Amino acid sequence: MKLVDESVLADITLGSTILGAGGGGDPYVGMLLAREAIRKHGPVQLVDLEEVPDDAMVVFIAGMGAPGVLVEKLPRDQDAVLALRELESFLGIRFTHVAPAEAGGLNAVTPFATASTGLPVVDADGMGRAFPSLEMVTPTLYGGMCTPMAFVDEHGNVVIMKSPTNAWAERIGRAACVASGCHVVMALYPMTGRDAKAWLVRGVLTLAESLGRTIRETRLAHGSPVDAVIEAQRGVRLFEGKIVEVARRTERGWTIGEASIEGSGAFAGETFDLHFQNEHLAAMRNGEIVATTPDLIMVMATESGEPIPAEEIRYGYRVTVIGMPCDDRWRTEAGLAISGPRCFGYDFDYQPVEELAAHAGQPVGAR
Amino acid sequence: MKLVDESVLADITLGSTILGAGGGGDPYVGMLLAREAIRKHGPVQLVDLEEVPDDAMVVFIAGMGAPGVLVEKLPRDQDAVLALRELESFLGIRFTHVAPAEAGGLNAVTPFATASTGLPVVDADGMGRAFPSLEMVTPTLYGGMCTPMAFVDEHGNVVIMKSPTNAWAERIGRAACVASGCHVVMALYPMTGRDAKAWLVRGVLTLAESLGRTIRETRLAHGSPVDAVIEAQRGVRLFEGKIVEVARRTERGWTIGEASIEGSGAFAGETFDLHFQNEHLAAMRNGEIVATTPDLIMVMATESGEPIPAEEIRYGYRVTVIGMPCDDRWRTEAGLAISGPRCFGYDFDYQPVEELAAHAGQPVGAR
Repeated sequence: MKLVDESVLADITLGSTILGAGGGGDPYVGMLLAREAIRKHGPVQLVDLEEVPDDAMVVFIAGMGAPGVLVEKLPRDQDAVLALRELESFLGIRFTHVAPAEAGGLNAVTPFATASTGLPVVDADGMGRAFPSLEMVTPTLYGGMCTPMAFVDEHGNVVIMKSPTNAWAERIGRAACVASGCHVVMALYPMTGRDAKAWLVRGVLTLAESLGRTIRETRLAHGSPVDAVIEAQRGVRLFEGKIVEVARRTERGWTIGEASIEGSGAFAGETFDLHFQNEHLAAMRNGEIVATTPDLIMVMATESGEPIPAEEIRYGYRVTVIGMPCDDRWRTEAGLAISGPRCFGYDFDYQPVEELAAHAGQPVGAR
Repeated sequence: MKLVDESVLADITLGSTILGAGGGGDPYVGMLLAREAIRKHGPVQLVDLEEVPDDAMVVFIAGMGAPGVLVEKLPRDQDAVLALRELESFLGIRFTHVAPAEAGGLNAVTPFATASTGLPVVDADGMGRAFPSLEMVTPTLYGGMCTPMAFVDEHGNVVIMKSPTNAWAERIGRAACVASGCHVVMALYPMTGRDAKAWLVRGVLTLAESLGRTIRETRLAHGSPVDAVIEAQRGVRLFEGKIVEVARRTERGWTIGEASIEGSGAFAGETFDLHFQNEHLAAMRNGEIVATTPDLIMVMATESGEPIPAEEIRYGYRVTVIGMPCDDRWRTEAGLAISGPRCFGYDFDYQPVEELAAHAGQPVGAR
């Protein structure tokens, strides 16, 4: 167990932007939300997954919506508490722990917004990254159910759902989310401590904190944060250059779009394309696929190492794109069935980012 | 109190099609649903609004969706019972009475699908007709709340909502309904017996039964059912002719469209246009408005007097269009604010159908 205060929160926030793979919502917004709660109610306990008792009752606390909308409409910490309490009241139980649904982006720190409840946050998530859909979590791979879930919006609407499948929960929940203005806070995937230990991705908040600290310390030492992240995450340097085109729209409750990069340095004369739906889904170098979901694709400012979410990419930014291996469970047949390229309408199969990189003769680790 | 058996149900079904004003869903579908429940569980008690005790707990049971979809996907009677039970469980109460949200169309008889519960149906509704939106009910005029409500769909999804306004319940409920396939069964507007007596439109199921019997008996006597309905409902003969054009689409969860009629008989050489969103919203004779929501506009087969819902209108049908005054409460400022032409995007104000008819020099009552 450790305590998460403002400084730890800042490192988690920075690192979770890397794990957000372009999406998960702007972590800065989540940090404001969580920091406000921590300032009011004190540091929050972060507990290892192993410390969670079998009979604990764990629930994900997460926002759903389009990151592009979220940066203009800040959520409120009391909405997270309200979602939790509504689900407790519906189920007739009390939760003992909260956990992030995804360790990437905003949602890595959303559970800390429940600080007023005194509930510990579990250092584990359902993705080891961020994904755009409710059913794309490791519990789905074990038969875990997204519902009963509760969501609340800024207008005071409360929706409680029970769905026969997690895909139905996503479909109806997303439609209700869009109708209520494209951002809601949810309590979902109620599970026992025993299930949490079997299902979740361990240590991702600690990982996010470590990544954040690495970036911060490397900056202080005038080193390359990009190189440090590649080193720490067994990453692949996919491309380096200047953003020359961005198309981005809010569609069906997601931030969807494409970005193009003109190569520089070792990549001079080459082109690179990114496709995203909240998160980055596919990356093409000179028209050849070099990384796809469920592996993590992330854009970082080449000099400062600042991770840049998909909704923040702008013309002229000098960036480095890195690829990072996803949790091994996403690479199984069952994992790819809910997170692979074909789930997003692409007509090609997944190949691990490190194999694609080796094939393309690209430098792995550092140049 | 009276008992509703299969034969009474048939008359209610026929008459409620008139009150459906083109929408409310095909009553035949509702009749199949209710008849199945009555066959299995016996006749259902129909009680006068005055008989309902002040401390009774009353709830509307209704379908929501696009009538054009509904005729292809039959609802199940157990869905109505499930919606009722889910709302009871959420509220921690037991309902003592069910009532139709609208006496028009399918929803006039949907409450009878709860026959297995033994709950009496109240002879009153929240419209005195059918309307396309959840907030367009008389309880809204008194501050009555649509939520907490529960809806269930054919896939096994259950959604429970609490909304700060009835318009929000409509907006989010509609989106969830569309996502689940455009037809759900709901339990909504939980209210006490005291409120029901103050808020609801009395005797509409008895009225529907009486209209149905009138049409049936007039047919047997080789009379004109159209004339008989106009007589019984203080109606206006708006037009007579042949359907020459129909445009109809399922959009945002509604059946939306227009129909054009070429005049015959006393209306030879004239044209007539109907606009509908589930229900008929406006009727134009030679480009002049002759009837608008909230008054009832209904299309009937000229010879047989068969009422034709908007989703059943076909090229070549010989029809008579009649206009009928709505419940007086819809004609107040508060009533028009949620049911008048401007609520549907029209740029004109409401005028009572009988005044428009007098102005146009049309025959009132019978020719």
